[in-house]
Amino acid sequence: MATTDLRTAELERPVDVAEYLFTRLRAVGVQSVHGVPGDFNLVALDYLPKCGLQWVGSVNELNAGYAADGYARVKGISAVVTTFGVGELSAVNALAGSYSEYVPVIHIVGMPSTLSQANGMLLHHTLGNGDFNVFTNMSRNISCSVSILNDPSTAATLIDSAIRECYLKSRPVYITLPTDMVQKKVEGTRLEKPLDLKFPKNDVEKEDYVVDVVLKSLTAAKSPVIIVDACAIRHRALDETHELVVKSGLPTFVAPMGKGAVDETLPNFGGVYAGDGSNPGVRERVESADLVLSIGAIKSDFNTAGFTYRISQLNTIDFHSNYVKVRYSEYPGVRMNGVLSKVTSKIGQLNSPKGPSPSNKIPHAEAQSDSQIINHAWFWPRMGQWLREKDIVITETGTSNFGIFDTRFPKDVTAISQVLWGSIGYATGACAGAALAAKELEVKRTILFTGDGSFQLTVQEVSTMIRHGLNPILFVICNDGFTIERLIHGMDATYNDIQPWKFTELLSTFGAKPDQMKTYQIKTRNELDQLFADENFSSAPYIQLVELYMPKEDAPAALRLTAEASARLNAKQ
Amino acid sequence: MATTDLRTAELERPVDVAEYLFTRLRAVGVQSVHGVPGDFNLVALDYLPKCGLQWVGSVNELNAGYAADGYARVKGISAVVTTFGVGELSAVNALAGSYSEYVPVIHIVGMPSTLSQANGMLLHHTLGNGDFNVFTNMSRNISCSVSILNDPSTAATLIDSAIRECYLKSRPVYITLPTDMVQKKVEGTRLEKPLDLKFPKNDVEKEDYVVDVVLKSLTAAKSPVIIVDACAIRHRALDETHELVVKSGLPTFVAPMGKGAVDETLPNFGGVYAGDGSNPGVRERVESADLVLSIGAIKSDFNTAGFTYRISQLNTIDFHSNYVKVRYSEYPGVRMNGVLSKVTSKIGQLNSPKGPSPSNKIPHAEAQSDSQIINHAWFWPRMGQWLREKDIVITETGTSNFGIFDTRFPKDVTAISQVLWGSIGYATGACAGAALAAKELEVKRTILFTGDGSFQLTVQEVSTMIRHGLNPILFVICNDGFTIERLIHGMDATYNDIQPWKFTELLSTFGAKPDQMKTYQIKTRNELDQLFADENFSSAPYIQLVELYMPKEDAPAALRLTAEASARLNAKQ
Repeated sequence: MATTDLRTAELERPVDVAEYLFTRLRAVGVQSVHGVPGDFNLVALDYLPKCGLQWVGSVNELNAGYAADGYARVKGISAVVTTFGVGELSAVNALAGSYSEYVPVIHIVGMPSTLSQANGMLLHHTLGNGDFNVFTNMSRNISCSVSILNDPSTAATLIDSAIRECYLKSRPVYITLPTDMVQKKVEGTRLEKPLDLKFPKNDVEKEDYVVDVVLKSLTAAKSPVIIVDACAIRHRALDETHELVVKSGLPTFVAPMGKGAVDETLPNFGGVYAGDGSNPGVRERVESADLVLSIGAIKSDFNTAGFTYRISQLNTIDFHSNYVKVRYSEYPGVRMNGVLSKVTSKIGQLNSPKGPSPSNKIPHAEAQSDSQIINHAWFWPRMGQWLREKDIVITETGTSNFGIFDTRFPKDVTAISQVLWGSIGYATGACAGAALAAKELEVKRTILFTGDGSFQLTVQEVSTMIRHGLNPILFVICNDGFTIERLIHGMDATYNDIQPWKFTELLSTFGAKPDQMKTYQIKTRNELDQLFADENFSSAPYIQLVELYMPKEDAPAALRLTAEASARLNAKQ
Repeated sequence: MATTDLRTAELERPVDVAEYLFTRLRAVGVQSVHGVPGDFNLVALDYLPKCGLQWVGSVNELNAGYAADGYARVKGISAVVTTFGVGELSAVNALAGSYSEYVPVIHIVGMPSTLSQANGMLLHHTLGNGDFNVFTNMSRNISCSVSILNDPSTAATLIDSAIRECYLKSRPVYITLPTDMVQKKVEGTRLEKPLDLKFPKNDVEKEDYVVDVVLKSLTAAKSPVIIVDACAIRHRALDETHELVVKSGLPTFVAPMGKGAVDETLPNFGGVYAGDGSNPGVRERVESADLVLSIGAIKSDFNTAGFTYRISQLNTIDFHSNYVKVRYSEYPGVRMNGVLSKVTSKIGQLNSPKGPSPSNKIPHAEAQSDSQIINHAWFWPRMGQWLREKDIVITETGTSNFGIFDTRFPKDVTAISQVLWGSIGYATGACAGAALAAKELEVKRTILFTGDGSFQLTVQEVSTMIRHGLNPILFVICNDGFTIERLIHGMDATYNDIQPWKFTELLSTFGAKPDQMKTYQIKTRNELDQLFADENFSSAPYIQLVELYMPKEDAPAALRLTAEASARLNAKQ
């Protein structure tokens, strides 16, 4: 009897490695697995249906990675399967984005058999040098954990720890699955006990100490405000944040990356704070505050309109997933969730002058204008009037993710954007994943705003939306190329031009049935008003694509400021 | 006066770093630069026109990388420009392929300014951790040299050495170009002296010694043959190889990756040797030889039909770019080119039984058949009858790059495939670059064979072909998904299915003018015969796309064997 058989005989309930892995994925909330088939992952894919998982079958791996990111932002976690070398490398940009922006994606790579690896065989998908670790090592830089499943005796433990790390640290993990490991046996009884995905509790004494320090500052402050940013979302502190915002009644703002984190219908919601790129009145209110409760901040250039924050650390309390910082006093190892909860439960009546009350009212100049040109100043609040509760709104890096500053959301809107990583093409891929997640959660509408330039990079993922019968509304802003780049450098440079496409033909080309899709060309404000008033359109019965024509040089004010700051920084000696 | 100004004042002819770099590129034969604009490379792109370079403006970076690879295979070297993080990572799969297959591509990455890097600023396109080296370090694994242009005093030297390394080692190099370095001054007089791209000569005594050993073996052999493989092409030894093949008259074969390396109209050309996947009669002839001159071999699984070579090292002389190996005697540091030349000049009359004479004759069973179904056994020789001198033929990993074994080329055909790296989607991207190179070289036809599954991954690069007025003929084999994967595992698995597209609508959707394109649906042998007979089609006046319908489960015999071997290896315990 071979040693492997001996080992299997000792198992109480032998389960194949692939079945174990996929069962765990299903249990943590993954219902659909993204990815592209490749010869080193095919046998593993056979296990998906029996584990209750749907195979997405993305069109390419970069798109699969983007889609997995979008799916995870809606459902809390996701998985993407690629094949060794060629597949995984095509996905690294997407996974680096997930790493950068704290999105929990489990990346499973189908590897050549452990025997082929040990023998250093000259296989396809290798660099021809017998090194089977090179791509794994590349991914170590963009993964919070790497699990090498080369041995069935450790496979179950490694799978469990990888999924926990992914969830708790909210970053990608990388799991290798060699072809000969797929059917190796691990202990199935482990599956009876669900994975523990609770965050470790803070040390009580330490937490209480921090809470006390925070409360003292807060009680003493005369005009405190709250700013909510990306990490409040990504590190699962939205419930605690919401309770604090509601109970404290403090003027509450969001950074661009925190858009959607706060119920924007609350009376104390004050709009987007992004330094010079803030909503009207917000900068003045925030920067005159004597205390800022900053929840989950990521103070990157594009999240601060080019580092134009003017808030002193002397007036700031920072809440993070792994530390709290009160002015210059740091409290490492204290997670924000527990602190925020206790602060909320202990605060009394707080006073703070009210902040601005943003709305979707069209700015005066635009409302008075008799122009029919759709410009950004007019569009984003107008679009906000059309949004509905629970919508999922994806905005591409460019005019869209700056334009959305000027949209006030209804309740429970999920906003998806990639402000820090900023990879163009992301939004269309993410939309495919988000729309699939929406379907699983019975959320009615997923709405994409992308530009004609960015859309081209990953356009084929629209095919996957059609294949799965998804019903997103795709707004393609037709403004003749890369406007965000024109604003940084090269307003009239040909390298910022693109090939003109007939976007409205895409759905048909990608196989959508004529009665299961609709396309539109919108060039005037009246046309857009009519479209928004069309209940068939607005109810999103099937996939729809809108060519939305906007002037080439027009941009949201916040983007102009940020682009100018970028250009200055690039040139600085 | 600042130190930089002092330094500039010492220069005889100050030239901006970007101008220096691009002038060097132009001088080594690059006429078009591939890539995607991004804010960290925009200012550099301004320099392209004045240096006589065309900007391609690829649709995404992976496609740009593939296209640069295809361009380099036709023109000898290429360049691709991406932006920090998001751009460069999207291209790594393509560059890993170039590394694996020895294709010289210069990868220039627009980086944040050295000041931003030194300050560890929290910029967009970063991981948010202040580490600006992480992506460069990832690329070190797939680059034969990395040049960090952080200092104008070393920039010109680093640029020169990077281009030389790229050319001489025939592998990608990686050059960082920070935004604040673009306009720094370097010594322009250096440009008056062209880069030395000559391979270092072998040590004469050593070379003569090796030549003598080779000649002794060759003269003593009774049935020697020649096999030419990829590295003869990639390491620029085709002239020396051709002289040997012609003068020796020995039966000469090509490995799959060597397809196109040898003039297939020569009387001693014998066809493709790939172990069990060889052309008819080839295996028997090669494996009965008492001496094999193996030029530039890469004995990977897909290049040997699953490691089914049966040639003893005792009967083999291997010629490589950096060593020669006679049976088991190794001669490191001896480049094949000089050795091959001297051997050719010194050989006398050699005797070797003739090998098979492949042709494009339709196999008997197919010729007799009254079936109208286009299958692989019929198609590839039939297609060969239609090829013309100087055609550039690109075959995708899958049925196409195995099918091409059965096509005998006219003179001077360039064949492009990615047999070792095998990244699906490559061929369409490579076709864009190859077709552009063809235009520059006034080569009339570039012909792509890809599958409906693979085509979808990178389809938008067809837009770039249209944008530049290129005229490739795109054959899309419509066989309902990933046939190569079905043969390895999952013949009827849904994960090997794809979304059906209307491929013939793509050219119009991507903006081709009605009179500047044509599309075809070909479902029968008669229809294909008529198409091939149509001189308007065959003269390739503009871009054309052919939907070529073939049965889902049909495949070239060599692919079947290779796939079976792969499946066995994957499962082996």
